[in-house]
Amino acid sequence: MAQLYSSVKPTPMLKDELDIVIPTIRNLDFLEMWRPFFEQYHLIIVQDGDPSKVINIPEGFDYELYNRNDINRILGPKASCISFKDSACRCFGYMVSKKKYIYTIDDDCFVAKDPTGKEINALEQHIKNLLSPSTPHFFNTLYDPYRDGADFVRGYPFSMREGAITAVSHGLWLNIPDYDAPTQLVKPLEKNSRKFDLPLRLPILYVDAVMTIPQGTLFPMCGMNLAFDRELIGPAMYFGLMGDGQPIGRYDDMWAGWCVKVICDHMGWGVKTGLPYIWHSKASNPFVNLKKEYNGIFWQEEAIPFFQSVTLPKECTSVQQCYLELAKLVKEKLGKVDPYFITLATGMVTWIEAWEELNSEEGTEAKAPNGKNE
Amino acid sequence: MAQLYSSVKPTPMLKDELDIVIPTIRNLDFLEMWRPFFEQYHLIIVQDGDPSKVINIPEGFDYELYNRNDINRILGPKASCISFKDSACRCFGYMVSKKKYIYTIDDDCFVAKDPTGKEINALEQHIKNLLSPSTPHFFNTLYDPYRDGADFVRGYPFSMREGAITAVSHGLWLNIPDYDAPTQLVKPLEKNSRKFDLPLRLPILYVDAVMTIPQGTLFPMCGMNLAFDRELIGPAMYFGLMGDGQPIGRYDDMWAGWCVKVICDHMGWGVKTGLPYIWHSKASNPFVNLKKEYNGIFWQEEAIPFFQSVTLPKECTSVQQCYLELAKLVKEKLGKVDPYFITLATGMVTWIEAWEELNSEEGTEAKAPNGKNE
Repeated sequence: MAQLYSSVKPTPMLKDELDIVIPTIRNLDFLEMWRPFFEQYHLIIVQDGDPSKVINIPEGFDYELYNRNDINRILGPKASCISFKDSACRCFGYMVSKKKYIYTIDDDCFVAKDPTGKEINALEQHIKNLLSPSTPHFFNTLYDPYRDGADFVRGYPFSMREGAITAVSHGLWLNIPDYDAPTQLVKPLEKNSRKFDLPLRLPILYVDAVMTIPQGTLFPMCGMNLAFDRELIGPAMYFGLMGDGQPIGRYDDMWAGWCVKVICDHMGWGVKTGLPYIWHSKASNPFVNLKKEYNGIFWQEEAIPFFQSVTLPKECTSVQQCYLELAKLVKEKLGKVDPYFITLATGMVTWIEAWEELNSEEGTEAKAPNGKNE
Repeated sequence: MAQLYSSVKPTPMLKDELDIVIPTIRNLDFLEMWRPFFEQYHLIIVQDGDPSKVINIPEGFDYELYNRNDINRILGPKASCISFKDSACRCFGYMVSKKKYIYTIDDDCFVAKDPTGKEINALEQHIKNLLSPSTPHFFNTLYDPYRDGADFVRGYPFSMREGAITAVSHGLWLNIPDYDAPTQLVKPLEKNSRKFDLPLRLPILYVDAVMTIPQGTLFPMCGMNLAFDRELIGPAMYFGLMGDGQPIGRYDDMWAGWCVKVICDHMGWGVKTGLPYIWHSKASNPFVNLKKEYNGIFWQEEAIPFFQSVTLPKECTSVQQCYLELAKLVKEKLGKVDPYFITLATGMVTWIEAWEELNSEEGTEAKAPNGKNE
């Protein structure tokens, strides 16, 4: 019984089982606002860009910080799979974490308020999402049936009510929504809030729901406010090759989302989206974004149908096997669209090799971060 | 541009293009509360049970009323496809309507209020849902992108942003949710509202969203608060054989939902769920429901996998063709589960024959309802 399940137990906060991964190029003043929610967790900060730049971290946080030199030192030639000058570099943090769960957040995201004015503990909601089952195999019209006050509706098969293990929790954004450059250009003033901020616009978009994205359905996964079970799906959370030296940017999380969803569907795991919201403070420059995104916008018209039609062989029983199979198919099918995908497929293989290396017994010892360790 | 699309145009209320279908066994006092919203529409009332009983309709409504004698007279031997002593009889109303759109509502459903206390014009929201496109082929994390204040998020393929035609709008319920008998029995006091109505229960379930149910995903369609494009999907909105003389009840809308969704997926049309809410005043007796539902609960474990795996041949290019093909497959595959499905498959064929007959030129003249005509 869903209601009883969630009403009786308080949310375990997983303090020793979750790392927060933050990619950044600047001082992390934004952490001040998150202090009451993040201070008890370990942070993995992945510094992008110039490694000689010193990044200030507010006092009292427990963190490890990796810059490009650290990544090169730890991964050696395999560092080629980690992007530079793109927030895609964050996936290095997933690889070096030793925890079961990861929460990743952008450094321009702040604590949002719910419609009653209460500050939203985003992490707590992500943990709720990850610890309660998903429903990828049949749609529940009252959204998450495991939530307080909800349940499975009439006509929901009883044999499916145990649900599936949840691998990913995708949170949303108030204020500045995650739009692409063309949409940003066309709607420069739109904000996702409960306020009437422009005449004729009524953006009442705080939607009080969590839902499972059904099996067989792809979605645009945004890395701004994202949690996942690293032990389950970590090896598929590769954010690709973006930014410096690559013909594409701002598609890192999309790429990961397509791969992750196809693999979760194959493994029978669930992906949730909806709550929690964070407050996204500023839109990035749409003109710069347009240049970064151009190839992504163009190529996704081929890449999405490819991912929609991919079937992984039954023999693939681990995420690593699935991911290597996917890399092979990417090379074979998308390599025809552009040679970039051949490079990307190579990066995918290198990523798995690096993951395996770092996450073996010896690999764990080889990690020596810069900064305060846990 | 979604925002501009919906902000600029007021919702056309389709007064001459929509019928409201109400199945009932009692006086329709509930219409008083709906007067401001329904009075300008034509009502089709399908009286279930004893045809000699006189049903009072509040003054001022434009309606036609059909009882069992009318159904038998109009359909002749084909009346066998219309259920008796079950709200499944409502689908007769879909068949005799001459309008493009249908809204159907139960007579224990009242006007709900949104969180600001404003009365919800359910019909207006259903019309908005039906007149704006759906997104069955890719998931938009900000829900309906055509709604004011929303749009397609980054990573949504541009070639898919025109969306698909919307065939069905499935609305939800405040107060008493649509639970099956076992859930009703286990949770006798649960209500779907914004109020704390029991200690430890926090049902905050007014979810301010409309979403498309993705292609390939089935859902439990409830007939309590449902609108659809009759010209598109009407011939598939058959509510099956339930109630009197049948081994099953309370699965009429579920049956229709499975058939409709499979056919919409085949035709490339969208099905939306979410807003609008109505206020469902009273739960039906769970002990009575358990008896009615028993076979449905049992059989759906076979029926749902059947519908999940059905593929309609490309040659089926009309809803009628799809539906007859589905009837054939139901007989073939589900007939093995129970002989009831062979009877139901025959009913499905008879339904299409009756639909064709009534919706041809001559058929239209043959309709002579009891009560005030339009």
